[in-house]
Amino acid sequence: MNNYVDGNFPLPVKIIGTGRYLPKQVILSKDLEEKIGIEKGWCESKQGIKERRWAENEETESFMGAKAVEEALKDACIQPNEIDLLINASQTFEVAVPDGGTLILKHLGLENKGIPTFTTTSACLSFLAGFDLAANLLVNEKYNNIVIVTSEITSTNLDYSNKEVITMVGDCAAAVVVTRPSDKTSLLHAIRMETYSKHSGVSSLSGGESYQSMFNKNIRPNDFNFSFNATNMQAVSMKYNKNFLKKLWPGLTPDTIQVVIPNQASRLAIDYLKLMFPSNKIINIISFLGNSGAVGYPMAIYQAIKDGDVKRGDKILLFGMGAGFSIYGMIITY
Amino acid sequence: MNNYVDGNFPLPVKIIGTGRYLPKQVILSKDLEEKIGIEKGWCESKQGIKERRWAENEETESFMGAKAVEEALKDACIQPNEIDLLINASQTFEVAVPDGGTLILKHLGLENKGIPTFTTTSACLSFLAGFDLAANLLVNEKYNNIVIVTSEITSTNLDYSNKEVITMVGDCAAAVVVTRPSDKTSLLHAIRMETYSKHSGVSSLSGGESYQSMFNKNIRPNDFNFSFNATNMQAVSMKYNKNFLKKLWPGLTPDTIQVVIPNQASRLAIDYLKLMFPSNKIINIISFLGNSGAVGYPMAIYQAIKDGDVKRGDKILLFGMGAGFSIYGMIITY
Repeated sequence: MNNYVDGNFPLPVKIIGTGRYLPKQVILSKDLEEKIGIEKGWCESKQGIKERRWAENEETESFMGAKAVEEALKDACIQPNEIDLLINASQTFEVAVPDGGTLILKHLGLENKGIPTFTTTSACLSFLAGFDLAANLLVNEKYNNIVIVTSEITSTNLDYSNKEVITMVGDCAAAVVVTRPSDKTSLLHAIRMETYSKHSGVSSLSGGESYQSMFNKNIRPNDFNFSFNATNMQAVSMKYNKNFLKKLWPGLTPDTIQVVIPNQASRLAIDYLKLMFPSNKIINIISFLGNSGAVGYPMAIYQAIKDGDVKRGDKILLFGMGAGFSIYGMIITY
Repeated sequence: MNNYVDGNFPLPVKIIGTGRYLPKQVILSKDLEEKIGIEKGWCESKQGIKERRWAENEETESFMGAKAVEEALKDACIQPNEIDLLINASQTFEVAVPDGGTLILKHLGLENKGIPTFTTTSACLSFLAGFDLAANLLVNEKYNNIVIVTSEITSTNLDYSNKEVITMVGDCAAAVVVTRPSDKTSLLHAIRMETYSKHSGVSSLSGGESYQSMFNKNIRPNDFNFSFNATNMQAVSMKYNKNFLKKLWPGLTPDTIQVVIPNQASRLAIDYLKLMFPSNKIINIISFLGNSGAVGYPMAIYQAIKDGDVKRGDKILLFGMGAGFSIYGMIITY
């Protein structure tokens, strides 16, 4: 068990650029409440969500992902063909075959460069898995510049009768460029992931894959509905959180961390961290983006940098839960 | 570009156990030919496939994956709770949420141990991506024992009218346990992946994800049909193969490699390697398993070890193409 293995940490890894794409279509909570017939003000008071974006027309996952990568590369001052590896770290897929990273490279005009790509996925925690792997790959010096991109569209995969979920989800994309720094000031200090599949039912979407395929005569439209209950998820999380953080980094206190980035899964998930850290250290983007799946983490990193909430040398705690049930934590110096 | 970066290779990584699961139901080519109305003998003469297995009843991807892991752990002489990380390296998914690794841990009775898991996916090349990442993770000493498991069911996702594909696919699972060896005799010498998305259309399955979701009124059953043409795929591959192998390992000759494991995608893909390597060095399992997606690689490793075709100290070349279009190559000392 990784409880007892500390590893060669810290690993040198530096975020040198970030980018994002927001779909043009803004869905205001008040309009959505009226459309689906729920109490006015419910989304904001219960979910903490004022508005979210829903992709439409040419805004596919690969289109949005490529736009986010373009901005991140510009921010990092590197050329597209200087990418050594593109990791698509997403929960949802545009198509079943081929891989999403391939389609993103195509939108970037990198369709003939041989730049490798694969996908890492672990529900809402997909970006953290991608970042973790990128940092490990950088150490072994095969790659210099790695792009981690997360792009999610969940709005097209939902039934309006699924009111708790349809009000919660937002579509968007964000990307981060990481490199192996020459100075040893940007670091990944610790990572930890724990999976408890006894809670695998806490969030699920059963239809459309091999278990209940499209060719299964017993499949029902309801099998395509994503089930997620923020209260249940949070109740499960709270059983594991405190021990988890202690094991992640024994020296962890509110003072040692300058910025806390929770999974932007629900208002509850974010508010819960206020019991442990001052609220001014906690990044919250759910109010204008909703739950955007695995994009929450890289989008919050983007936002924190642009807003000046994180500066070079600051320690960031990335921490949250996702379907699985899994908990992931990571501490980096930006 | 990773062309110009050699990295800290070789990385120490040792395969200490392998396992597999074959579904009970054997589908003979002659029966299938009769059922779908194609010429007798076609599967064997064109595809090189005598029989394949199709999962049914309780044989889900997670069930099969767990059975393969159980055998691999026994082979490695390690207990289930000594797993530090389980990488689900599969092309297909049992359900959309949660992640397949979670469900495999549940079948293994490891639902409350906190063992982390995530998925790496890159079509047929998913296992190679998982192995590559596992080797990189081992170097940094966070984990000691990593399981890489690939489990695929494609038979349930196919329409019988899709004759070229339905005759080709087989279901199964295989797993490999890797560790960081104390002696430096088992090594990963080189890895290389190249993606050319200009050929992304060479193999595709467009329906059921965010682009053409179940709630899209324009979706047609045909959108769920996997398209793959072995001849086209092979024609594309041949444009890149020779240069690729030179860049993978400049010293690569037929004599330096004892065992060649191609992607078990088609008879063409396997036969093509006979132009470069003696046929007795090439592992072929397509005749009794068909194209089993990403399972081809770990299953061929399993078979080569069990049959005595690979011994400690032998160099294995793992090499093949997958939807993307991507090429992946890896050289290990077993």
